[in-house]
Amino acid sequence: MTFTEQLAAAWQNNDSLLCVGLDPDPAKFPAHLKGRDDAIFEFCKTIVDATADLVCSFKPQIAYFAARRAEDQLEALIAHIHERHPGIPVILDAKRGDIGSTAEQYAVEAFERFRADAVTVNPYMGRDSVEPYLAFPDKGVILLCRTSNAGGSDLQFLDVGGEKLYERVARLAAEQWNTTGQIGLVVGATFPAEIARVRAIVGEMPLLVPGIGAQGGDIEATVKAGRTAAGTGLMINSSRAILYAGQGEDFASAARRVAEETRSAINLHR
Amino acid sequence: MTFTEQLAAAWQNNDSLLCVGLDPDPAKFPAHLKGRDDAIFEFCKTIVDATADLVCSFKPQIAYFAARRAEDQLEALIAHIHERHPGIPVILDAKRGDIGSTAEQYAVEAFERFRADAVTVNPYMGRDSVEPYLAFPDKGVILLCRTSNAGGSDLQFLDVGGEKLYERVARLAAEQWNTTGQIGLVVGATFPAEIARVRAIVGEMPLLVPGIGAQGGDIEATVKAGRTAAGTGLMINSSRAILYAGQGEDFASAARRVAEETRSAINLHR
Repeated sequence: MTFTEQLAAAWQNNDSLLCVGLDPDPAKFPAHLKGRDDAIFEFCKTIVDATADLVCSFKPQIAYFAARRAEDQLEALIAHIHERHPGIPVILDAKRGDIGSTAEQYAVEAFERFRADAVTVNPYMGRDSVEPYLAFPDKGVILLCRTSNAGGSDLQFLDVGGEKLYERVARLAAEQWNTTGQIGLVVGATFPAEIARVRAIVGEMPLLVPGIGAQGGDIEATVKAGRTAAGTGLMINSSRAILYAGQGEDFASAARRVAEETRSAINLHR
Repeated sequence: MTFTEQLAAAWQNNDSLLCVGLDPDPAKFPAHLKGRDDAIFEFCKTIVDATADLVCSFKPQIAYFAARRAEDQLEALIAHIHERHPGIPVILDAKRGDIGSTAEQYAVEAFERFRADAVTVNPYMGRDSVEPYLAFPDKGVILLCRTSNAGGSDLQFLDVGGEKLYERVARLAAEQWNTTGQIGLVVGATFPAEIARVRAIVGEMPLLVPGIGAQGGDIEATVKAGRTAAGTGLMINSSRAILYAGQGEDFASAARRVAEETRSAINLHR
C-alpha cells in the first residue's frame, strides 16, 4: 500500500486527522524511565501503543534521536509501529534537502534504513533535490511550505511576482513536481489564513500541520482552513502537549486522554 | 580557536583554498577495502591523511554515513582529523533546518556528538532556525545561498523586490543574522557571476563553493569571482574527482596528486 493509501485508510479507520509527533526529550521523561539505556525507545513505544487507535500517523523527529546517538532506537521504534500497528503511516521528520546524488543517500536513510513511509524535505534546492525521494513509488514526500516558527516569514513571506514564496512552493509542488501523487506539504497551524491559501492552490494534497498545542495554533481555524471537501486532507500534528501530558508512571494514560481530546476537538470542526 | 580563526590559519599554513569533500560511496572503493566493516572510515581516513597538508578544510557529507548506519565511523573520522591534523576545520555537510527547539538538537548532533567545527544549514525557515547553532560561539554555520544543482534556480533565482532570492539570503545573512561573525554561505561554482554578486554583498564572509570537478565548475572563474582582497575567503570543494581519482591500492596517492593539482590550479588565480 502506498503512503497516500495508508493515510486515507487511517483517516477513515481511526476517524482521526491527528498526527502524534515523537520528539523524545529525556529531560522530560518520567522518573521511572530515566537512566535506562533504551529510555527513548520505551518512552516512544509506550506513547505509540497508548494512542495508535486515535491517530492518522506518527511523526518521529530524527534530531531528538541523532543528538543522543539513538538511531538504533529510532529503527526499533518504527519497526514496532509497523509490526504492532500496521496501517498507521510513519513520517520521518528530517527536513532533508541536497543535490541529487546526496538526496539519493538521504532517501535510502529514510526509506530503507529507517523504513519510514514518508519523509519531510526542504524545497530550497528545487525540483531535482526532491526527485530522488519520488523514485520510491510507495513513499510520501512532505515538502516544507509555510512553517510555524516566527522566522518562517523571513523568506517564505517574500513577494515573488504577485504571490508569496510559500504560495509559489505550493504551486510548483502541485502543478509541476507532483507528477506521481506522492507529495504533501507542511503548513503551520499558526497561520490559518495561509493554510486556506495553500489548500486553494493544491486541491486534495495532504497537508501536515504542526503548531497546535504547545505552539499555540487554533484547532478550529486550522481545520476549517485546511480540510478538503471530504473532511480529510490534514495531518494535524501535536507533539509536546501529548508526550508530556503526564509526568508520572501514568504518562501513557495522560497522553491518551489528551490525544482523545485533541482528536475530538479536531473532529468537531470537520 | 574559533572556526573562523582555524579556517584563516589553514588558508595560510597550507597555502590552500581547497576543501576536500568526504562523500564515501562503498561501490566506488578499491577492491582491497570492500567487505571490511570499517571500510568507510578506512577509506576516508586514508584520503584525509594523504591530503591534510593540501587543504583548508574537510567536509564529510553525513548522508553517505547515515544511509549505511555508519555514524560511528563518522564520529571516528572526525576524531581522527582533530587528533592527527589539528587546525584543519571539519565542516559537517548536513544541511539541517528546523524550528528552534529542534534546531538545538541538530546543533548538539553536529557540534557535541560529531565534534564538527561548522555545519551547513538551510535558510528556508528563517533567522530563528539558524540561531541555535550560533549559540555555540566557536562554531561556524554555513547557510545555503545559491546551490550548484540545476533545480537550484527554481526558488533561489526568483525575483524578490528587485533582487534574486539567493541575494536576499546573502543580504539577510550579512546584514542581520551574522551578529557574531560565525556565518558563511554556500555558493555553487556552476554560477561564477553569482559568486561575484554574493561576494559584493557579504564582504569578507567565507564562501563554501561546491561544484568544481565532477560537477563541471570552472576554477579560474570561481576564484576570480569569489576571492577576497587578501586572496582568501573561499573553501572550494572537490569530492568525487579527488576521492575516486584512483581505483586501486594506490588510491591515496592518486587522490593526493589530484588534490595538489587542484590546489595549484586554484592558487594560479588568487
